[in-house]
Amino acid sequence: LDSADFDALEDKARARLSPGAYAFAAAGADDEITLAENIAAWRTLRLRPRVLNDVAKIDTGASILGAGLRNPIMVAPFGRHKLFHPEGECATARGAAAAGAVFVLPTTSTVSMEDVASEAATAPRWFQLYLPPDRGLAENLIDRAAAASFGAIVLTVDQPVYGSSPRAARAPLTPSPDIRSANLPGQPIAQHSYKPGHTGSVTFPATLRDLEWLVSRSRLDVVVKGVLRGDDAVRCVEAGAKAIIVSNHGGRHLDGAIATADALPEMADAIAGKAELYVDGGIRRGTDIVKALALGARAVLVARPVIWGLALGGAEGVRAVLDHLNAELARAMALCGAARLADIGADLVANK
Amino acid sequence: LDSADFDALEDKARARLSPGAYAFAAAGADDEITLAENIAAWRTLRLRPRVLNDVAKIDTGASILGAGLRNPIMVAPFGRHKLFHPEGECATARGAAAAGAVFVLPTTSTVSMEDVASEAATAPRWFQLYLPPDRGLAENLIDRAAAASFGAIVLTVDQPVYGSSPRAARAPLTPSPDIRSANLPGQPIAQHSYKPGHTGSVTFPATLRDLEWLVSRSRLDVVVKGVLRGDDAVRCVEAGAKAIIVSNHGGRHLDGAIATADALPEMADAIAGKAELYVDGGIRRGTDIVKALALGARAVLVARPVIWGLALGGAEGVRAVLDHLNAELARAMALCGAARLADIGADLVANK
Amino acid sequence: LDSADFDALEDKARARLSPGAYAFAAAGADDEITLAENIAAWRTLRLRPRVLNDVAKIDTGASILGAGLRNPIMVAPFGRHKLFHPEGECATARGAAAAGAVFVLPTTSTVSMEDVASEAATAPRWFQLYLPPDRGLAENLIDRAAAASFGAIVLTVDQPVYGSSPRAARAPLTPSPDIRSANLPGQPIAQHSYKPGHTGSVTFPATLRDLEWLVSRSRLDVVVKGVLRGDDAVRCVEAGAKAIIVSNHGGRHLDGAIATADALPEMADAIAGKAELYVDGGIRRGTDIVKALALGARAVLVARPVIWGLALGGAEGVRAVLDHLNAELARAMALCGAARLADIGADLVANK
Amino acid sequence: LDSADFDALEDKARARLSPGAYAFAAAGADDEITLAENIAAWRTLRLRPRVLNDVAKIDTGASILGAGLRNPIMVAPFGRHKLFHPEGECATARGAAAAGAVFVLPTTSTVSMEDVASEAATAPRWFQLYLPPDRGLAENLIDRAAAASFGAIVLTVDQPVYGSSPRAARAPLTPSPDIRSANLPGQPIAQHSYKPGHTGSVTFPATLRDLEWLVSRSRLDVVVKGVLRGDDAVRCVEAGAKAIIVSNHGGRHLDGAIATADALPEMADAIAGKAELYVDGGIRRGTDIVKALALGARAVLVARPVIWGLALGGAEGVRAVLDHLNAELARAMALCGAARLADIGADLVANK
Repeated sequence: LDSADFDALEDKARARLSPGAYAFAAAGADDEITLAENIAAWRTLRLRPRVLNDVAKIDTGASILGAGLRNPIMVAPFGRHKLFHPEGECATARGAAAAGAVFVLPTTSTVSMEDVASEAATAPRWFQLYLPPDRGLAENLIDRAAAASFGAIVLTVDQPVYGSSPRAARAPLTPSPDIRSANLPGQPIAQHSYKPGHTGSVTFPATLRDLEWLVSRSRLDVVVKGVLRGDDAVRCVEAGAKAIIVSNHGGRHLDGAIATADALPEMADAIAGKAELYVDGGIRRGTDIVKALALGARAVLVARPVIWGLALGGAEGVRAVLDHLNAELARAMALCGAARLADIGADLVANK
Repeated sequence: LDSADFDALEDKARARLSPGAYAFAAAGADDEITLAENIAAWRTLRLRPRVLNDVAKIDTGASILGAGLRNPIMVAPFGRHKLFHPEGECATARGAAAAGAVFVLPTTSTVSMEDVASEAATAPRWFQLYLPPDRGLAENLIDRAAAASFGAIVLTVDQPVYGSSPRAARAPLTPSPDIRSANLPGQPIAQHSYKPGHTGSVTFPATLRDLEWLVSRSRLDVVVKGVLRGDDAVRCVEAGAKAIIVSNHGGRHLDGAIATADALPEMADAIAGKAELYVDGGIRRGTDIVKALALGARAVLVARPVIWGLALGGAEGVRAVLDHLNAELARAMALCGAARLADIGADLVANK
Repeated sequence: LDSADFDALEDKARARLSPGAYAFAAAGADDEITLAENIAAWRTLRLRPRVLNDVAKIDTGASILGAGLRNPIMVAPFGRHKLFHPEGECATARGAAAAGAVFVLPTTSTVSMEDVASEAATAPRWFQLYLPPDRGLAENLIDRAAAASFGAIVLTVDQPVYGSSPRAARAPLTPSPDIRSANLPGQPIAQHSYKPGHTGSVTFPATLRDLEWLVSRSRLDVVVKGVLRGDDAVRCVEAGAKAIIVSNHGGRHLDGAIATADALPEMADAIAGKAELYVDGGIRRGTDIVKALALGARAVLVARPVIWGLALGGAEGVRAVLDHLNAELARAMALCGAARLADIGADLVANK
Repeated sequence: LDSADFDALEDKARARLSPGAYAFAAAGADDEITLAENIAAWRTLRLRPRVLNDVAKIDTGASILGAGLRNPIMVAPFGRHKLFHPEGECATARGAAAAGAVFVLPTTSTVSMEDVASEAATAPRWFQLYLPPDRGLAENLIDRAAAASFGAIVLTVDQPVYGSSPRAARAPLTPSPDIRSANLPGQPIAQHSYKPGHTGSVTFPATLRDLEWLVSRSRLDVVVKGVLRGDDAVRCVEAGAKAIIVSNHGGRHLDGAIATADALPEMADAIAGKAELYVDGGIRRGTDIVKALALGARAVLVARPVIWGLALGGAEGVRAVLDHLNAELARAMALCGAARLADIGADLVANK
């Protein structure tokens, strides 16, 4: 990773990928308002650094769902890694393990969860779940995740239907035998593409009853991903979720959805410490992570930069991206006068 | 309609139309501040989607002036459709009927209201009225609209004089025998163009007295179009209007007029449910419709995208545009956790 | 004047003028922040038009310092018209007279006030005064203005020193025998240009004592031009000024000065009707005039568009510009539901 | 200095310097958000000038830490002047002396403090200190500064680690024997460049204890540079600092740090006159200085424009830049109605 920043990294990855694979990763829904604003919202926040604190030793160590981790950076679930590297999610798993980051493997993985687990046996990993309408399939996934030592189930709730992306529609994916759902071999894998006649039919229902069922059925902690409102977060916690991921699915489904940085403060207020809170969407700098933690998140998740690292260097590229982000976090903490994550308080951030 | 979005559709239509016809449809008054801001104001609003609701079945069905309609999307009145397609308003009427959308036929139609009515006999349609100074002509129009089974009279009140468009002036319309007022054969049809010496003389007076006269004279419900203030809306309702259309005439007359999305909340507060409220201006996405309904509108009207569909595909193009918008509405509702229009509340929207 | 708007007019004038003459008229101080913002501040304001009022007859008639005028548009003082047209201020005077607009002739006129007065004997005109350090010269100017039937003395107070314009410095004026101060033949006429070593020495002192002296000495009403604060406006009125012109000298001296549209409301509050209030800076549309009057001004002054008209058509060009602006005002009033200037209230304007 | 403004000056200097030297001076950290916003924040503030005051004589004289100075403009510490001119800090010192400006010589000077002192013996100068981890080295620097008649010690507290600059990384510095730390001959001089693997290790610790030690150890007044929060400023004053410099290190370390113009009001409130307050970052115009003083600063510091002057003209270039800025200050004061620095009050500034 000899790129100065993730924008340069994306340019390099784009040059190597097929137009369809690049667009699949890069595009957002409709006019890409939320895609752009996720990034802009972090950048618009201003830091109010403290000085004259002792920052001789910076400790980025985080505690996530009871586990001690090297840093508060996780790999967000993102489908079909074989589009980007022949080793697919195996490479990502190894890279994340090397960086000490939780890898959230998606239902739509092109490598089975068992193969991923065997790749990095002791590394922290969670399983992201799109709840299939068929409850039997759901139970199959849940039980296998537990058996494969995944540490939590991440239920995605912001994709009842697919969004529509004009950009992705202009660069369609070429079908390939490799690009199939390895966790649910019999299931079709959706084309994320523009459908003028889309009728709004639901692909993955996830109602409050489903969440309650999942909590009762799963031996693993349940994390809910895709919440943008305080009242919904409270409902999830009351239904048994142990953590919430503030997310708008990277701007891929509902264009115009509030940026995650803008939704975070309301969420933190509503949760009031009753569950853990993480955030994804637009995190590109160590300073973004400091801002996220200052606004109430305990950790962040990153997807697209990891994909660019994967495309360019496989496992090593993934590790390099995550290490780079962690180094930026350490630097940002030192420059803010915060030696530990616990030193990052709300007073560090001001609106521009 | 194989275009990814309405911007691409407009580009295609522009390539097919004469410069004058394109500019007649596309241009706004003066510096086009309001034209641009109508669109931007919707895009600036942020959605706060709800999750974990049951959205397995999305119902876009709307009740408008007591009629049950397939969706809350109407075709706004827009003059001279024969500029865009040889079948003119007949094509638009058939397309709207196929999509289940109310077609608001303008006074300045290039097809007579009787011919339009015979084209789609049972489809919902309203008649837009520029009140002619000659009351006899006005009565002629009102009575014919009722006889031709139009469902309401839409009185336009925001065009006492014409606006001025530098863009349209640079691409004047070529006179053509087809482009004439079919509803008022003896009347001249105005050139929407720049007049440096324009003296501000009123073309279509519409005072409160005129509205009261129209309400008393018309057997049909009266809708007032072109209101941007709460106090004016209340005056209209007190004068007997059954509904108000928040509109600035698509930015075509008073440049700098407040964007309709920005005017809507004040209007909804002032009306307080005593009449129905619709809005037009800048609606280009299903998410825009969700925002409009969240801010208090019961339905939206769309003009320019319909014109592009008409130019490119006649009745079928019109239907495709409206169906596309309805599909986007259904998707946006699902992604917002709203299964019915009644589920769309003010809490769904936040200012950026 | 067959241009669609004043931007196009400026382009045409620029093509005809020498670079130095164009830059002299067009440039603003330093980074031209205030120059741009004067225009932007009017455009950012939104109109909240009223409907259903009787606007069959629009009356733009204004009462300014007791005189009945055709409209509330005046020609702002601007120096050296012979740079733009061989007839100089004579042409401007005739054009303004034809349009019924007050012409404010500057001290730095290239035609003497007596020659201007003989050009349009009965037309309304005021004399702008830079108070010369030599009181004898000042008395000479004041008395001659009264003798030549000027209606008021406009004391400019915002030019104690010259501003600096990098743009004008890049296009210096070519000296010419025609370009000299016709009112003060013995006095040098300043080069408005960049002076790195400028020491801040005062060219035209104007203290409160000077204003009091002028009020007591002049038979004519005294208007103060160049005030941007409520407290200063009150001081001027207490010293005897009959009217205040909210102005930042067209952004030519203090870059970063508040835009006149932004200063106007505070000024109107402070004056509270004890004097008349006018405004200049960035007025380019009839809607700008409606906004200015809604915010508390009784009239507006315009300079640069008049200069472009002068450059392109002499007296006729000046008249065309002013008539065009008046026609736009009439149209804007009709579209706002205001039949007379008195109908233009604060409720017509909203911040964006 | 025949350039119209500092942007043009920078362009000229860039043409003369090596890409590495230019980037070293011009670049900011990461995405250069703070670099750009430092400048923009001053430009966004609006001036509310006073009129009719007596500004016949403008006096820019300032009192800084008890010394009477010609103006409130100081040369900010900036390292390695031999990158820009063969005479290095000697030239800068002479230029600053000629302009009557305090020169703040940095620890990382390429000329020793003793040589600088002999260059302009009676000119006002301060010594900027990066506190070396080795206290003996620190005492050596402090004592030498006092012996060389420096007037104050400026402790920089906002650089516990280096920032990272993609722009500077793309144009690395060429090593040269001239570019070495003349004040600490045995010490390495850091490359300000991008380090992906940077671990956040602290280079110059500066805790509150260090500040207290410095205050007790130094015979000279201690100024703290790099504070952006009111609470930190109070801590510094309580620890014995005589003055605070509001600074974010020119946007070179923590990108996203609040602009100094935005931090200044809070700082002034917190300090409440108990210490002097200066500000640097983005000062490019005389009007910026007026704004800084209106918001509570007693003086400003300038770095990059001085570097461009140094690169283009050595001592004479430095003097020209500082004189130019002082002339702009005098002009801005006259145009604001402020004859002395004490006349510049908070009422002169408004937010846009």
